[in-house]
Amino acid sequence: MIIEMQKGADEPTIQRVVERVKEFGFDVQLNVGEEEVVIAVLGSNTGIVDTQVFEALPGVERVFRIMEPFKLASRKFKPTSTIVKIENVEIGENKIVIMAGPCAVESEAQLLSCARIVQKNGGKILRGGAFKPRTSPFGFQGLEEKGLKLLAKAREETGLLIVTEAVAAEDVGLISKYADIIQVGARNMQNYRLLKAAGKSGRPVLLKNGFASKIEEWLCAADYLLNENNGHSVILCARGIRTFEDRTRFSFPVEVIPVVKRFSHLPIIGDPSHPSGDFRYVPAVARAIIAAGADGLLMEIHPDPKKALSDGAQSLTFSDFSRLMRELKDIAKAIGREI
Amino acid sequence: MIIEMQKGADEPTIQRVVERVKEFGFDVQLNVGEEEVVIAVLGSNTGIVDTQVFEALPGVERVFRIMEPFKLASRKFKPTSTIVKIENVEIGENKIVIMAGPCAVESEAQLLSCARIVQKNGGKILRGGAFKPRTSPFGFQGLEEKGLKLLAKAREETGLLIVTEAVAAEDVGLISKYADIIQVGARNMQNYRLLKAAGKSGRPVLLKNGFASKIEEWLCAADYLLNENNGHSVILCARGIRTFEDRTRFSFPVEVIPVVKRFSHLPIIGDPSHPSGDFRYVPAVARAIIAAGADGLLMEIHPDPKKALSDGAQSLTFSDFSRLMRELKDIAKAIGREI
Amino acid sequence: MIIEMQKGADEPTIQRVVERVKEFGFDVQLNVGEEEVVIAVLGSNTGIVDTQVFEALPGVERVFRIMEPFKLASRKFKPTSTIVKIENVEIGENKIVIMAGPCAVESEAQLLSCARIVQKNGGKILRGGAFKPRTSPFGFQGLEEKGLKLLAKAREETGLLIVTEAVAAEDVGLISKYADIIQVGARNMQNYRLLKAAGKSGRPVLLKNGFASKIEEWLCAADYLLNENNGHSVILCARGIRTFEDRTRFSFPVEVIPVVKRFSHLPIIGDPSHPSGDFRYVPAVARAIIAAGADGLLMEIHPDPKKALSDGAQSLTFSDFSRLMRELKDIAKAIGREI
Amino acid sequence: MIIEMQKGADEPTIQRVVERVKEFGFDVQLNVGEEEVVIAVLGSNTGIVDTQVFEALPGVERVFRIMEPFKLASRKFKPTSTIVKIENVEIGENKIVIMAGPCAVESEAQLLSCARIVQKNGGKILRGGAFKPRTSPFGFQGLEEKGLKLLAKAREETGLLIVTEAVAAEDVGLISKYADIIQVGARNMQNYRLLKAAGKSGRPVLLKNGFASKIEEWLCAADYLLNENNGHSVILCARGIRTFEDRTRFSFPVEVIPVVKRFSHLPIIGDPSHPSGDFRYVPAVARAIIAAGADGLLMEIHPDPKKALSDGAQSLTFSDFSRLMRELKDIAKAIGREI
Repeated sequence: MIIEMQKGADEPTIQRVVERVKEFGFDVQLNVGEEEVVIAVLGSNTGIVDTQVFEALPGVERVFRIMEPFKLASRKFKPTSTIVKIENVEIGENKIVIMAGPCAVESEAQLLSCARIVQKNGGKILRGGAFKPRTSPFGFQGLEEKGLKLLAKAREETGLLIVTEAVAAEDVGLISKYADIIQVGARNMQNYRLLKAAGKSGRPVLLKNGFASKIEEWLCAADYLLNENNGHSVILCARGIRTFEDRTRFSFPVEVIPVVKRFSHLPIIGDPSHPSGDFRYVPAVARAIIAAGADGLLMEIHPDPKKALSDGAQSLTFSDFSRLMRELKDIAKAIGREI
Repeated sequence: MIIEMQKGADEPTIQRVVERVKEFGFDVQLNVGEEEVVIAVLGSNTGIVDTQVFEALPGVERVFRIMEPFKLASRKFKPTSTIVKIENVEIGENKIVIMAGPCAVESEAQLLSCARIVQKNGGKILRGGAFKPRTSPFGFQGLEEKGLKLLAKAREETGLLIVTEAVAAEDVGLISKYADIIQVGARNMQNYRLLKAAGKSGRPVLLKNGFASKIEEWLCAADYLLNENNGHSVILCARGIRTFEDRTRFSFPVEVIPVVKRFSHLPIIGDPSHPSGDFRYVPAVARAIIAAGADGLLMEIHPDPKKALSDGAQSLTFSDFSRLMRELKDIAKAIGREI
Repeated sequence: MIIEMQKGADEPTIQRVVERVKEFGFDVQLNVGEEEVVIAVLGSNTGIVDTQVFEALPGVERVFRIMEPFKLASRKFKPTSTIVKIENVEIGENKIVIMAGPCAVESEAQLLSCARIVQKNGGKILRGGAFKPRTSPFGFQGLEEKGLKLLAKAREETGLLIVTEAVAAEDVGLISKYADIIQVGARNMQNYRLLKAAGKSGRPVLLKNGFASKIEEWLCAADYLLNENNGHSVILCARGIRTFEDRTRFSFPVEVIPVVKRFSHLPIIGDPSHPSGDFRYVPAVARAIIAAGADGLLMEIHPDPKKALSDGAQSLTFSDFSRLMRELKDIAKAIGREI
Repeated sequence: MIIEMQKGADEPTIQRVVERVKEFGFDVQLNVGEEEVVIAVLGSNTGIVDTQVFEALPGVERVFRIMEPFKLASRKFKPTSTIVKIENVEIGENKIVIMAGPCAVESEAQLLSCARIVQKNGGKILRGGAFKPRTSPFGFQGLEEKGLKLLAKAREETGLLIVTEAVAAEDVGLISKYADIIQVGARNMQNYRLLKAAGKSGRPVLLKNGFASKIEEWLCAADYLLNENNGHSVILCARGIRTFEDRTRFSFPVEVIPVVKRFSHLPIIGDPSHPSGDFRYVPAVARAIIAAGADGLLMEIHPDPKKALSDGAQSLTFSDFSRLMRELKDIAKAIGREI
């Protein structure tokens, strides 16, 4: 951490800052410039102290962080890329993993038809929401445990693994009984109670970025999971961010893939459905995510999108999904990977 | 809701859209323009249906919402401004209500000194966090029930009302025993389980906006509270949004005050501390919020900001707070209100 | 355009709005709902009237636009995709066009080495700035005409076409003498005087999006060019937008490619260098842009990036560029196109 | 400037960075931490070198700027607040200066009626656009010199000073003949040719922020003006920024006022009309800007907003303007200033 002192800060003022730094057990090095003094705070864990702690001190102009605020999710902490293994599926390996299914579990027929088309096209994991976080209290809130049972049935019939969302800490136990991967959604990325419960569940966790979270906040949220000693079983899922553009639901800043790969050891997949908000854009965004180097995709499909209870406009039909899967396999091959 | 059909959409395609609309019980009126057909969806509750439901239909170009997606929080639903009454304090009345206190409850001495300075300057409500949502799992997480007991003690000694944050549904019961107002923070604005629990608690709820939430999503979140029949006891608290500017922690878009006043009947106060992120900017932002017509302020103060366990840089000292209160009283008078 | 009247707006108020609409020569259709009246404004060119014109009228609640504000750049205006032909290069065709070169022209040796590596790898167009728009007046401002002459020389030696930026209307004449394509940069997307001059130059124009411009404003800027009767010779270049994320210089919202392809007939290429701001991210973003369906790329390369006078950090070395070109060719093939 | 080296960067790699730094004439101080080496770059003008220059070097992890990139506009460069004097008006003094008038000059009657109401209410400066930058080429583009002549006439009749916008360098000479202050609008904040011309004009310049520009880029743009030796005659005008919120045209982040006051010596006023985009919000935003400590306001008024050729929805009627001026005078008094 770097503390820039105000121009003309006097010796005792500077000393008081130095002492405060030392109270945290950090070392200090002073750079006395022509016009101002800069204090370098040294230590292997300065990342865990808020810059605000020093900004409040008299004579301080600004505080810059050098050490990352995240720790367990950092590639500095674990230089080798993590591979999350669930039964015979490996996420983060050279093979790209496709997860697809309906936004919400609606019925057995709907879910099973999705599962079969996912399996047929080489997907490994079935998604489907049983607990739905909805912006308005008047929207469809999900089938809850009945939905989880349908997911388990689809698992039995197709051998696909199951990923489904938990929206509250108290549901994690129930969901863990049915799901292979617990999803923490964008709206709950900073629901720390839920993060702790999911981290303790014994299941791998798929963590979406909050739609206005910085990458470093996302990796801090991953730290909450990893801190529960879950054996690095965290899969990051980029789902786009909110910007000023209003022609799409969200925006997918595709550089997020190489940036996260650089700073974190965790596998990262992408969700092309939510940023697009419209099935017309999903294939292009999906192809881009794979070409950028992601380890997989999470997509919404529906046997009859115009009758979907939620997210119909961004769900692919089965024929669009099958065509896209063929394109994705070719792109994977082009970059030396496989689906 | 307005459905714009694609250029050249044929009669049967249009009819299928019309039928889908009627399945929801809405009326339909067709505008046949020179180049395209536009379908107006009529009904008093079209706001509760996702635009995506119609966007997924063949032949549809775009769907526009006219009816608001929020309902109970809307001024169309309740034209008169709501006043939230808690004992002898009225929020939303001509009198402006000041809430202040430390970011986190740290000790009895710290909290009581804050309470006394708030009371002395005409504040009515003491804030203080006992459960702290922190970006990193390695940060200070709050004193929990011990903190709540200190808040209750401060209430006894000073007569101030207490507002404190709940970060999970399962804590609401405990917090309701100590607090006069339950705060739902920015990170939890879309934690629907928490919203429902807070709405059922019997206590008024102070609801901050998510830092990347649109006003209409914020009012939808208020609908979750109001839908639990809590007697309109919701106070909105604008705390700033995330933008590209990096010289401040967040930005306070001051027009939020008149916009919310126009579209909602709920009282709205402002938090100048979090957007500023630096004590130097807090007084200017606080004055602006009051001048813009807000019904109150929620501010962070600390007896010794440089030693604060969280948010030190944005906390006012007691002397800065006292000076600011004098300025605010003059501004309130200038706009025909009172503190 | 749709005009939503306020609840309870009376007959004469509504009539005054209707009359104002008719003054513009538009037709009107009234939808009388249960609670409010909605006025549909019909006509083939409502897009050219500001919604503000009607929002200012008494009794009006809100105004929604259905017709696009852009016209000449719209696919509704010209349904077939435009191909910009310059000598033997076609942009917008099945073949993907690569444009690369240094940020700024610095010397003959630097420029010619870039030109040769571009040509060797199958690029068709050499980029290089002679007039540099710089954030600070103390930065390097470009070689101006001397730079243009070096570009002309590189053209002669390699047969590559030349694209270079104009930063002011008065330079367009000079630049047209040397360049095959005139670039209008992000900062000048709404410099209308420059747009008009470039549109009149007789040269095709490469138009970057402003870094905080909405897609519809970008297409309005293209209208300025097309309105000068330049024969549809406009190439759009997506260069990323500003968001709250601070780990990259800008963000590349990859869905911009299919969205623009849907609403406009103009060819669109992508610039992976500026959003990345770091050479480490450029290859991933470049691959994503091509996989998403763009018609080409504009990239920064440098023989020795660490000595570059501007944008060194985001410039590829020649060996990184050559490796990337091989990857891009494979991806192009995977999606049925060619470089 | 602080250069953070990668973990494990070896001695020769570090030395090459140190040498590159010294080539610019800067001093260097090395901090050898437990895990990484940090290089402090010392010198009074490091602000003028791009961080990218060092980011491109092998072994460099990240580069942080400590010295501001702006120089002439910085309070470090000139610690005392600047007062811009134009005839008998002082901007930046304790007195708050009100500038108001129509968005576009439309006719003599329209302009003169505005001028009279501005004068009557204590305003000192008349605004009015003769050259209009419009998003679409089909919008009203202004009366040009005819408009300037009407402004001159209004000046003669009322004694108000005139502020009007220049949209291109080649118009600056003409506009200087008529205007007391030359306005550079948001879209042209980085039109450097225009900035240089305006800086050389001999007239004070009112510089709006680009709607997606960071404060430091805005102050860099001011450097372009000040660098032409115009005697510190620059007035900053905050006009709001683009955010994700779609209920208003732009957002006014009110903390911009104290932040700019801290980092720059230049006077700053605010424009409440453009961020609001709706006359209903303008008074609240105007009051907030004054309460936050701005040195003045620039506002749009119109004798009959519903007939305005541009920006009608955000223009105040004369009676709304007069009422607002009374409120503003009371607020000014409350904070110890005067209108």
